[in-house]
Amino acid sequence: MKLGIFGFGVVGQGLYHVLQQSNTIQAEIAKFCIKNITKPRSLDATLFTDDKTELLDNPEIDVIVELIDDAEAAFEIVKTAMNSGKHVVSANKKMIAEHLEELLALQKQNKVSFLYEGSCCASIPIIRNLEEYYDNDLLTSIEGIFNGSTNFILTKMINESAPYKDVLKEAQDLGFAESDPTLDVEGIDARYKLCILLYHAFGLITDPHTLFTLGITKINTFDIEFAQKNNFEIKLIAKAKKIGSQIDATVLPTFVDKSSILAQTKNEYNAVILESAFSESQFLYGKGAGDKPTGSAVLSDISALGYGYRYEYKKSAKSKEKIELHEDFQMRIYVRFADQQPDEADFTEVLEKYSSRYGNYWIGYISRQKMKEAQWLEIPEINVIALG
Amino acid sequence: MKLGIFGFGVVGQGLYHVLQQSNTIQAEIAKFCIKNITKPRSLDATLFTDDKTELLDNPEIDVIVELIDDAEAAFEIVKTAMNSGKHVVSANKKMIAEHLEELLALQKQNKVSFLYEGSCCASIPIIRNLEEYYDNDLLTSIEGIFNGSTNFILTKMINESAPYKDVLKEAQDLGFAESDPTLDVEGIDARYKLCILLYHAFGLITDPHTLFTLGITKINTFDIEFAQKNNFEIKLIAKAKKIGSQIDATVLPTFVDKSSILAQTKNEYNAVILESAFSESQFLYGKGAGDKPTGSAVLSDISALGYGYRYEYKKSAKSKEKIELHEDFQMRIYVRFADQQPDEADFTEVLEKYSSRYGNYWIGYISRQKMKEAQWLEIPEINVIALG
Repeated sequence: MKLGIFGFGVVGQGLYHVLQQSNTIQAEIAKFCIKNITKPRSLDATLFTDDKTELLDNPEIDVIVELIDDAEAAFEIVKTAMNSGKHVVSANKKMIAEHLEELLALQKQNKVSFLYEGSCCASIPIIRNLEEYYDNDLLTSIEGIFNGSTNFILTKMINESAPYKDVLKEAQDLGFAESDPTLDVEGIDARYKLCILLYHAFGLITDPHTLFTLGITKINTFDIEFAQKNNFEIKLIAKAKKIGSQIDATVLPTFVDKSSILAQTKNEYNAVILESAFSESQFLYGKGAGDKPTGSAVLSDISALGYGYRYEYKKSAKSKEKIELHEDFQMRIYVRFADQQPDEADFTEVLEKYSSRYGNYWIGYISRQKMKEAQWLEIPEINVIALG
Repeated sequence: MKLGIFGFGVVGQGLYHVLQQSNTIQAEIAKFCIKNITKPRSLDATLFTDDKTELLDNPEIDVIVELIDDAEAAFEIVKTAMNSGKHVVSANKKMIAEHLEELLALQKQNKVSFLYEGSCCASIPIIRNLEEYYDNDLLTSIEGIFNGSTNFILTKMINESAPYKDVLKEAQDLGFAESDPTLDVEGIDARYKLCILLYHAFGLITDPHTLFTLGITKINTFDIEFAQKNNFEIKLIAKAKKIGSQIDATVLPTFVDKSSILAQTKNEYNAVILESAFSESQFLYGKGAGDKPTGSAVLSDISALGYGYRYEYKKSAKSKEKIELHEDFQMRIYVRFADQQPDEADFTEVLEKYSSRYGNYWIGYISRQKMKEAQWLEIPEINVIALG
């Protein structure tokens, strides 16, 4: 295999060195395409170009590894590569989630392989496990912590009883959160990953924007104290559950028992719990972000291309039932508010009401539909956290 | 697929019910072969026989699922089935570890598939991950807790500062240990699993008896106190590490840091840590024993047969290097003794010596070879625990 690599960050550099040491992966890097060709590099200058056609039009290159940030530019590269009959490895979750159908069609049309293990939970081989091991209708749910930045922030918030803003600043200083953290803290990054996994887990293609998602930015010290008093951690949980042929899928800040395995997933770690027939659960855990975990996943994809591996998307191919996203499930939530209160009529049932000078909360059942339509959710002092 | 199943325990019964509910697994149970045909059963009597030829000689049955205890009887069944061109699913680690070469040859000769995910760490899809995801030479080590009974016993010993014998009794009463616990507590069960995984991880076939193994039966309250004072747990760790083309593989009671993820693997749970290139580690965790976890793995194997899956044993096929078990590594150990002391000359270096009226211990380096030959290891009052 000859590889053309877009991007020369730590992943690209690491790939170069690991491939040189491997006895069994028959892959060689032909060229890196980079933005800034004048910047000094650690490798020979002939290995670099800033002209993408030098990779995409080179018939000797049979695999493109796409490691750039910009999702739209990445999609153009990946599309061109597949249309030129090249196999592609990528870890770009935004690009994959937003273009999933087109990417599936491109693979089919061009009979090429498109692998993206690094796009979901980095080092955790979750896509491969869904494809190869949980490849039938026996899987009933998948849930987990899919975003390392928010998990780092939430771990610190709970440990230090510190409000969101202070911890975000610290996380940014330490490099655990982006300078524009929106995609992470609003749950959008986790939603992209959930969206990709929904297809591999249940054969469901869905527009990421339709999945009900709440972020962690409104969590305050009152919420944290509630968690501590009740022996909870707060985690941003992405979850999909199959009930008959209907899928319930959400990304929500959630109170989880301190003793649970998800509560023990701390800092930048990710975790996935799979439940299947026989009510058995399987737990996978590893670093969810960062150069090395991503590099490790990208490398395994490259290695798999060496023996012609491709995703077979067995769930969608085999299923007789029409799997659908369903939106009318009941959720048990905690809603905390100040002067303005939520509309009680929206609730199916309010189970508990608490008020004090420090804050007020209700605990109750509400339908997903009412939740999605609730105007009061826009009020800055109102925060909702799911009760698992 | 038509299945012939040997054994009608909880796994067999569960399989029957789950297969009836599945839309995608095209498998039907033709017959169960059981020992005692007169015992009343929950299913129709026509589904049972005590004559194994009714399954093995039936050309309509294309898959044999072997779920019996006796390893030698199981091997005869599996051999006959493969020689009759039938695919086989089994979870019998003793049988597989002891007959690995023959079983590999039988698969090849008869062009049949032999799957045994349930044999190693039950619900954890470790074999499939080694085959499919860690299928190249980038894996550097595999270690973990492979035996649920001993982990249950060790968890209780540490929690309750109770000696081995008391806890064993309790574990037996609760059904977490066999009435003859030898295979578990002497580390032999974990060794069988390690032996199977050595082939899938590194392409190494080895006689299980050659792997250096110590059990947990000699651990006393002095050892437990040492663990507690030093913030350790004691775990029975199976471990294989690749250094160049040499493999170091052992099963040893080991002191592990209380904060480590292996220490957090409690009771009947199993865990596996895989380390690979990019120094990334991946952690898999799930129930390691019991009917449901095993059933879950067996079911996934049956499902995989539906699309012609077979292990490709890529490690042994692809590797250019001759992988060998090596026995001359240095180990750091804790050795506790009473009146009779170990032979100091056996040690490469003794780092610490402690003596008191309650017990004595040394900490030091010793070569594997010296350890294997040490006569003093036979003395009942001398116990060795590895320092990780």
